[in-house]
Amino acid sequence: MRLLTFEDAGKPRLGLRLGADVVALDGLGGDVPADMPALLAKGADYLASLAARAKDAPRRPLAGLTLLPPVPVPGKMICIGLNYALHAKEGGNPIPDYPAVFMRGATSLVAHDQPMLRPRASQKLDWEAELAIVIGRRARHVREADALSVIAGYACFNEGSVRDFQRKSTQWTVGKNFDRTGAFGPEIVTADEVSPGADNLRIMTRLNGEVMQDSTTGDMIFKVPKLIAILSEVMTLEPGDVIATGTPSGVGYARKPPRFLAPGDVVEVEIESLGVLRNTIEDEA
Amino acid sequence: MRLLTFEDAGKPRLGLRLGADVVALDGLGGDVPADMPALLAKGADYLASLAARAKDAPRRPLAGLTLLPPVPVPGKMICIGLNYALHAKEGGNPIPDYPAVFMRGATSLVAHDQPMLRPRASQKLDWEAELAIVIGRRARHVREADALSVIAGYACFNEGSVRDFQRKSTQWTVGKNFDRTGAFGPEIVTADEVSPGADNLRIMTRLNGEVMQDSTTGDMIFKVPKLIAILSEVMTLEPGDVIATGTPSGVGYARKPPRFLAPGDVVEVEIESLGVLRNTIEDEA
Repeated sequence: MRLLTFEDAGKPRLGLRLGADVVALDGLGGDVPADMPALLAKGADYLASLAARAKDAPRRPLAGLTLLPPVPVPGKMICIGLNYALHAKEGGNPIPDYPAVFMRGATSLVAHDQPMLRPRASQKLDWEAELAIVIGRRARHVREADALSVIAGYACFNEGSVRDFQRKSTQWTVGKNFDRTGAFGPEIVTADEVSPGADNLRIMTRLNGEVMQDSTTGDMIFKVPKLIAILSEVMTLEPGDVIATGTPSGVGYARKPPRFLAPGDVVEVEIESLGVLRNTIEDEA
Repeated sequence: MRLLTFEDAGKPRLGLRLGADVVALDGLGGDVPADMPALLAKGADYLASLAARAKDAPRRPLAGLTLLPPVPVPGKMICIGLNYALHAKEGGNPIPDYPAVFMRGATSLVAHDQPMLRPRASQKLDWEAELAIVIGRRARHVREADALSVIAGYACFNEGSVRDFQRKSTQWTVGKNFDRTGAFGPEIVTADEVSPGADNLRIMTRLNGEVMQDSTTGDMIFKVPKLIAILSEVMTLEPGDVIATGTPSGVGYARKPPRFLAPGDVVEVEIESLGVLRNTIEDEA
């Protein structure tokens, strides 16, 4: 299933995408949760029954909708740094034995097809193609062997990073939290439609059509089940929590010469099975 | 005004504390918002009118209530590291020229009088007395001179830190995000009852009655208005967002010999004008 959130009269609504059309889930009857975390918490069987009910429901064209991030306000948005060996190396970092973890706030998120903003404060906005995990079940102390059972689905993420601010202190958080720099979407693809743990999926960034990153999730240092085990040792993961799993090599700042995003640029993150996340860069007003 | 959130039949309710009693705000009529961010967003004049209406309303004893963190699920919980010169020095860190910023998730929070948890994974749980700012108005690009106008109030925070996990990578986030390690409360004191910018307030930690930290918010490197300006250059601050402003010297890991929190310990954070935040340490089940 392909689940998305769209904006209608200033409010978020949930949708199920069927090809070029979308079924609004609030049209299916009273028991359907109104927000994505609550929907995902209902579990795979419920989602399957919803898909069956959606078959004959009224549809609207996807092309006419304004998307929101699939989870507009995640309870937690956790990010993993340096999770691909070649990316660690291109930044001059050693291969880690424990992942670097930081968080993004919801104000930093932006949907598919909405402008990603280059902030007033910097011209060093960079791309980072990442696989995003979306949690479906409350989870703590999950073993690696059980980890996939807590995942609802996956999505594309462009973990836009303002490089000079990322390095203003030892902590990267400010460089990762400028408004509308983290693109997320277009939709959540439920785990049953993806390889187990979203392993071995091709992951790419294209900038104005030119390939900038081209790798596979099979090259992650800490793969999806391991990340769930490591994070759930520390904190309770809740439905709707999002984990961005790190980016492969090919980011802008490490290129020779360095390259950053500028107004008018079109940046696309594509992950096999998950689709294309496309954003145009605009300057902050 | 002293605003708090308490739990009733598994649900959060808002209260106004008047001495040893609490007035439940949902008893004052239909227009009172049900959650703290929405309440704070109403502004100081509305809060003052609410206080007037609460005078003759039914009261219940504070002693009988189970508190929640005053904002149970902040949109963003932003933390500042190394914001007192002597604390930077005790950890062997230089005085920063830009603050170290990281985030905590809501799952890491715990209310006044509730157990702070020493996690299974570590015995190195440490205390950090901090002044917490609670945002009252949506804000971006706020100048230092205007910064106080976006603040609704202040509270005590014990930014409990699991030191070995804090240093597992360059990013401190995991050590700051164990479940129920960040104590927040007991209540929000509105800004009108506190010195401008909560400056020059005595801030202390007592462990089983023994003073561990004893400083003043006047010793902050980046004071409250400066922090608002710095953070709002990066991200939109929203009502209910919380900023923990860093801890003074005297934390456990830097003591000789080092000292950490153990089950049965009672840790109190006291900030002048804001009250006492008290928690007993328990081992995670």
